[in-house]
Amino acid sequence: MIVVLKPNPDKKQLESFKQWLSSKNIKVHKSEGINTTILGLIGDTTQIDIDSIEALDIVETVKRIQEPYKNSSRKFHPEDTVISVRGATIGGENLTLIAGPCSVESKEQVCEIAKAVAASGATVLRGGAFKPRTSPYAFQGLKAQGIDYLIKAREITGLPIVTEIMDISQLPLFEEIDIIQVGARNMQNFELLKKLGTLKKPVLLKRGLSATYEEILMSAEYIMAGGNKEVILCERGIRTFETHTRNTMDITAIPVLKKLTHLPILVDPSHATGKADLVAPLSKAAVASGVDGLLIEVHNDPEHALSDGPQSINLESFDKLSKTLFAIHKVIQE
Amino acid sequence: MIVVLKPNPDKKQLESFKQWLSSKNIKVHKSEGINTTILGLIGDTTQIDIDSIEALDIVETVKRIQEPYKNSSRKFHPEDTVISVRGATIGGENLTLIAGPCSVESKEQVCEIAKAVAASGATVLRGGAFKPRTSPYAFQGLKAQGIDYLIKAREITGLPIVTEIMDISQLPLFEEIDIIQVGARNMQNFELLKKLGTLKKPVLLKRGLSATYEEILMSAEYIMAGGNKEVILCERGIRTFETHTRNTMDITAIPVLKKLTHLPILVDPSHATGKADLVAPLSKAAVASGVDGLLIEVHNDPEHALSDGPQSINLESFDKLSKTLFAIHKVIQE
Amino acid sequence: MIVVLKPNPDKKQLESFKQWLSSKNIKVHKSEGINTTILGLIGDTTQIDIDSIEALDIVETVKRIQEPYKNSSRKFHPEDTVISVRGATIGGENLTLIAGPCSVESKEQVCEIAKAVAASGATVLRGGAFKPRTSPYAFQGLKAQGIDYLIKAREITGLPIVTEIMDISQLPLFEEIDIIQVGARNMQNFELLKKLGTLKKPVLLKRGLSATYEEILMSAEYIMAGGNKEVILCERGIRTFETHTRNTMDITAIPVLKKLTHLPILVDPSHATGKADLVAPLSKAAVASGVDGLLIEVHNDPEHALSDGPQSINLESFDKLSKTLFAIHKVIQE
Amino acid sequence: MIVVLKPNPDKKQLESFKQWLSSKNIKVHKSEGINTTILGLIGDTTQIDIDSIEALDIVETVKRIQEPYKNSSRKFHPEDTVISVRGATIGGENLTLIAGPCSVESKEQVCEIAKAVAASGATVLRGGAFKPRTSPYAFQGLKAQGIDYLIKAREITGLPIVTEIMDISQLPLFEEIDIIQVGARNMQNFELLKKLGTLKKPVLLKRGLSATYEEILMSAEYIMAGGNKEVILCERGIRTFETHTRNTMDITAIPVLKKLTHLPILVDPSHATGKADLVAPLSKAAVASGVDGLLIEVHNDPEHALSDGPQSINLESFDKLSKTLFAIHKVIQE
Repeated sequence: MIVVLKPNPDKKQLESFKQWLSSKNIKVHKSEGINTTILGLIGDTTQIDIDSIEALDIVETVKRIQEPYKNSSRKFHPEDTVISVRGATIGGENLTLIAGPCSVESKEQVCEIAKAVAASGATVLRGGAFKPRTSPYAFQGLKAQGIDYLIKAREITGLPIVTEIMDISQLPLFEEIDIIQVGARNMQNFELLKKLGTLKKPVLLKRGLSATYEEILMSAEYIMAGGNKEVILCERGIRTFETHTRNTMDITAIPVLKKLTHLPILVDPSHATGKADLVAPLSKAAVASGVDGLLIEVHNDPEHALSDGPQSINLESFDKLSKTLFAIHKVIQE
Repeated sequence: MIVVLKPNPDKKQLESFKQWLSSKNIKVHKSEGINTTILGLIGDTTQIDIDSIEALDIVETVKRIQEPYKNSSRKFHPEDTVISVRGATIGGENLTLIAGPCSVESKEQVCEIAKAVAASGATVLRGGAFKPRTSPYAFQGLKAQGIDYLIKAREITGLPIVTEIMDISQLPLFEEIDIIQVGARNMQNFELLKKLGTLKKPVLLKRGLSATYEEILMSAEYIMAGGNKEVILCERGIRTFETHTRNTMDITAIPVLKKLTHLPILVDPSHATGKADLVAPLSKAAVASGVDGLLIEVHNDPEHALSDGPQSINLESFDKLSKTLFAIHKVIQE
Repeated sequence: MIVVLKPNPDKKQLESFKQWLSSKNIKVHKSEGINTTILGLIGDTTQIDIDSIEALDIVETVKRIQEPYKNSSRKFHPEDTVISVRGATIGGENLTLIAGPCSVESKEQVCEIAKAVAASGATVLRGGAFKPRTSPYAFQGLKAQGIDYLIKAREITGLPIVTEIMDISQLPLFEEIDIIQVGARNMQNFELLKKLGTLKKPVLLKRGLSATYEEILMSAEYIMAGGNKEVILCERGIRTFETHTRNTMDITAIPVLKKLTHLPILVDPSHATGKADLVAPLSKAAVASGVDGLLIEVHNDPEHALSDGPQSINLESFDKLSKTLFAIHKVIQE
Repeated sequence: MIVVLKPNPDKKQLESFKQWLSSKNIKVHKSEGINTTILGLIGDTTQIDIDSIEALDIVETVKRIQEPYKNSSRKFHPEDTVISVRGATIGGENLTLIAGPCSVESKEQVCEIAKAVAASGATVLRGGAFKPRTSPYAFQGLKAQGIDYLIKAREITGLPIVTEIMDISQLPLFEEIDIIQVGARNMQNFELLKKLGTLKKPVLLKRGLSATYEEILMSAEYIMAGGNKEVILCERGIRTFETHTRNTMDITAIPVLKKLTHLPILVDPSHATGKADLVAPLSKAAVASGVDGLLIEVHNDPEHALSDGPQSINLESFDKLSKTLFAIHKVIQE
């Protein structure tokens, strides 16, 4: 971290600042120019609050050189993290397709979809049991029963399952779940993240609608700091001025996050736009840009889905799309 | 709700759509033009998911006329909601100043600040005991002890207290708290909102960084649908492309929300920008635009604050600002 | 266009509104419900200002059904527009690579780059002679001399050339230019657009940093309304809250614009992010999503480029990337 | 400017970088830490392109300390710029009300409005003759005739007039105009800015919809670098994710720009939101925050305005608002 001091800083304040840094085990390298004095802070500055330093009367400006995250940083962990769960593999050279309905609606529905997507190349089943809905009057999911149906579908297909948790109190119901999903609206529900950090189970962390790359990595850090190193990141659309689609899929997040972190990155093209006809082109784009996998909403009867029907594709479309995705993945691996 | 059908809609699908609407007690008024058939849906459409209807093959486009919120809507409740708590009043013709430190740091600190802000015209004390921080390595608040200190400050000054809850599990510690704050990052933590809806205690709900006006009202609706009608809304800055300030304070939110809802609206100019020297001009702006109150971070020693020091103003500045705010409030009341 | 009236509209005002519509050759289909009266406007509503109608005291809300653009709409022109210029083809089933330096710096530079990119599969040469720079103190381009050098490079390689115009007064210098580019900052320089609409020369129109899909199509409409139907659209990054990259490339723009319009769509991954190492993954993503071509900054010596060096890739990287792009294009064509 | 080098920078490249800096009259102060070498660049760095330096292989990161603008910076010109034009004064301790119709529609209309707003305290008349419209099919203004009508209104009332220029070629028509306005869409029409820099006439520069504070100051710099020091800045709403209003008025721009620059700052609350009922609360907010003046659309018959009727207030509303604005201004001056 580099601290640029204002001209003629108060000596007493400067001394007290240096003592405070010293108490944090930070060494200071001072460099004096004609108009400007620069302090280089050497040591572990992840614990230092950049805003608190900028608040000091004697400080002109501060620049962080070291990232504020450590466990998730590729600098300290150059190789890709690869997560294995019941035979499915996420990260590394793999392209992982995670598919299933937005909401679990019935045992028949989720089992039929599970069998079909497995046959088309998906290796993980997704399905919502607890549904975060903007309106308290909208369908909120089958809850515990939904989780039972997912487990049933896993028994039949062997596919590991991922589903979303909305509150710590729901955790006992997630004991059998293979991957726990944290939704975009809970990306900074820090108490939930801390709790998930104590588990031995992969966590799929979705990016908040207006979260920066650094912020999602800091949220991953909350989980990893607790000991759970199996975090999967997921881009699912950000909020911009454009209103044609529900959100704007941030394709740049993929190559940037691949550079900053060793954790696997997925994209959810279904939520990113909310329109079924955009799922195929955006899935192809994500794979071409180097994503580790996709989270795609697939429904056996999109028109009658109880939630988010408009963004689900049907079984035939998924089967066709899947082939193209693996073909593109092969091209970019060469 | 108005549904515009595509030209030559499939008759079977149209019939099945009408039956579904009928099952929801929605009446349909059909109007046929040369190229376009329009359905007017009459009844309580708050429970109808606009996206699900747009997904139908026979539908061209849908437009909501009635808002999707009811409890918080001014249409159904024209008079302002006025909330009284231990002698303080929020809403109506009042201008309520809520002040205090970002984080509770010690009994002495919070009591000294409480006495000073009360003398300057504040009628509610704020202070963070549980602090949501982007980094797991940053100071996370004094927690239960912080709440004890706030209660001590209330004993001395008589000021009711407001402090932030981060998770349902913390609720037992909030029994003595007068107003429970839900932070911006938890605005769509729906399980928490539902729980707070069962209490008999005012809830101060902060707007999420990228939440629309409709979304904050839907979150208020989650609380109100549970029976708790005492919700206070708070604008605290939104995320935009501008990076000079941490967030961009949305002044327009005040007159717009005053029109859409009967609930009181506050502004938090301290978090909205993160810079102490912007607190005064933005507070004056908020009062001039018709806000019901302000949530201002005040510190007896901003340079040594353990969190968010840069955005706190000192006791003298608050005292001076307070006088100007009441003077502006008087002008616009005339 | 559908106009929803307020309950009990003033009869005189309603009559005067209908007469005004009639004077614009718009027919009105009225439909009365219990609480709501709806007017369906039938005819060419592209000339009707939706805001003016919403302003009327008797109007509750308005919804446009027909898009406000016509010449650029795929509805009225279902087949792709394919633009041919000196042997290069843009649009249809083609993937067109447009490459060259950000700024033309010398005859040697632009000719060397032109030869190299042509050998790697580019069919159009790009290069800036007039450079729009945020700062008046920054290098503003070689101007007329830069255009001369581009023409020289065309003589040697046969590649048609595209370069940016910044003001109508520069037009005489563009007589020999094959495709005239309008930069993002001039997307709504309507006088310039009108003038370009009178030419018989393709125009490459870049999307403004915060322009919606509808707005770029309306700007295309300005050119096309003048008689010039050869407009090429280009996505080059939008402004969002994320600061890691200069802009955020909007990949969704590609499939959405392909659906709304018959005009060819390009992507400029170099300006979209401002970072050379992101050019390859984002180019691949754009091709996979169905783009018609790419505009890539290529430099023979990126480290010494006079402008925008950081985002240029070198000749070897372009050659390698080009092969992958055509391979992905082949996969998605199948 | 501070340049942080990568560990073990190539010596030859470092030498060549230093020579290049030396050729620009920039002195270098080097400071070596254990892992990091920092260069402090001393001299006039406004001409240095920060991106070009960041592109260098040997550079880790760069931080600008000095702002890239000079003429508009308050650092080099601490006192407020006060602009006088035909008796009206903008800047300093004044509150200047600029009012008039969105579009000039007829001589009678503009003269009636001019007389009324003058009586209510406005000291400058605004009115659009050339109208930038998103659609080529919308009303584009009365052009030269509109300017004639404005001049007529000035003759009658004595009010100086401000109106918008859209292209350099229109300049001859602006000879009699007192203040030339540059619209938001032309904020980075650099050729136009350069031309206006050669005039001896105040320029009212509106902020682009997604322009940062630094960018509007750089655009002011284009005008000032040409010799014309009379630039007036105007905030008119930025583009955000919120769709309830057309744009989001950025109230923070006022105190921030007052700190960064000595130029006067206005706010246009009419365009910022596009809704007449928001003009009053937002005008009051702007005055309370310290703005130098307001640009308000006033119409004698808002319902029949040819453009932007919905956002115009009528003569009575303006008269009432004006009184409150001067009262608030008095409070904050005390």
